[in-house]
Amino acid sequence: MSFNPEYENIATAFVQHYYAKFDVGDGMARAQGLCDLYDPNDSYMTFEGVQCKGREGILQKFTTLAFKQIQRSITKLDSQPLYDGSILVMVLGQLKTDEDPINPFSQVFIIRPNSTGSFFIGNEIFRLDLHNN
Amino acid sequence: MSFNPEYENIATAFVQHYYAKFDVGDGMARAQGLCDLYDPNDSYMTFEGVQCKGREGILQKFTTLAFKQIQRSITKLDSQPLYDGSILVMVLGQLKTDEDPINPFSQVFIIRPNSTGSFFIGNEIFRLDLHNN
Repeated sequence: MSFNPEYENIATAFVQHYYAKFDVGDGMARAQGLCDLYDPNDSYMTFEGVQCKGREGILQKFTTLAFKQIQRSITKLDSQPLYDGSILVMVLGQLKTDEDPINPFSQVFIIRPNSTGSFFIGNEIFRLDLHNN
Repeated sequence: MSFNPEYENIATAFVQHYYAKFDVGDGMARAQGLCDLYDPNDSYMTFEGVQCKGREGILQKFTTLAFKQIQRSITKLDSQPLYDGSILVMVLGQLKTDEDPINPFSQVFIIRPNSTGSFFIGNEIFRLDLHNN
C-alpha cells in the first residue's frame, strides 16, 4: 500500500456518486443507494455529533432523516492521499432541505480500498456550519 | 494496530496543543512550535487549496502567513478512530485575524501514532467557510 496518485480523480468521482445516492427524498431508497459504501462493522459515521458504527446503524440513521427534497451545491472539494492507499476528502458546501433556509455544511470522508479495488467509507463526519447558536 | 479507545481525549488534547502553537503572531515562532507535529516527508497539508508535503514545505507556508494577532473559538470538535490506530479530527470554528472580520473555518486532521507512542499529523486540510464569492 502507498499514496494513491489518482486521489483527486477518485475523490471527485466518489463525492459525485455519494451525493447522487444521498440526495433522494425517500429514506429507504437513500439507504439502498448507499449500502455498498459502508463496511458491515468497521465504518464510522458521525452526523451532527451522533456517532454510528457499522453499515446497519449508519443506514438506519440516514433512513430516518426527515426531508422530502434536498438541493445541494459544493463550494470546495479538497483531497489528499494517505500512506495506506486511503483518500481523505473534505467537502464544503451549501444545502437546502424542503422549505428550510440554505445552510452551509462541512463533511469529511476517508475512503479505503477494499480487496477488489473499489473503495468504501471508513470514516465520515457531517456538520452544518452553524455558529453562535 | 487497531481502533484507539482513547481517541476523543487524544483529539481534544491535540487540538488544544495545535492551536496554542499556531496562534502566535510571529511566523518563525509558529513554525518552531509546530515542527515536531509533522513528518519530514510524509505529512500532507492543504491550506486554502494550496497543498504542501513534508515538514519543511508546511512550516514554510505557516511562517509566511501575514497576521500579527489571531483570536479563535472552536464551535464543534468531532473525532473518530481509524482501523490503524490513527485518529480523524474535524474542527468547526471561528477566527479573527488583526482587523479582519470574523470568519468561520473548517479544519480536518488525521493524526498518526509514531513508534514512540506520540502522534504526528499525517494529513491536514484548512478552509475558511466562505461561500458565494
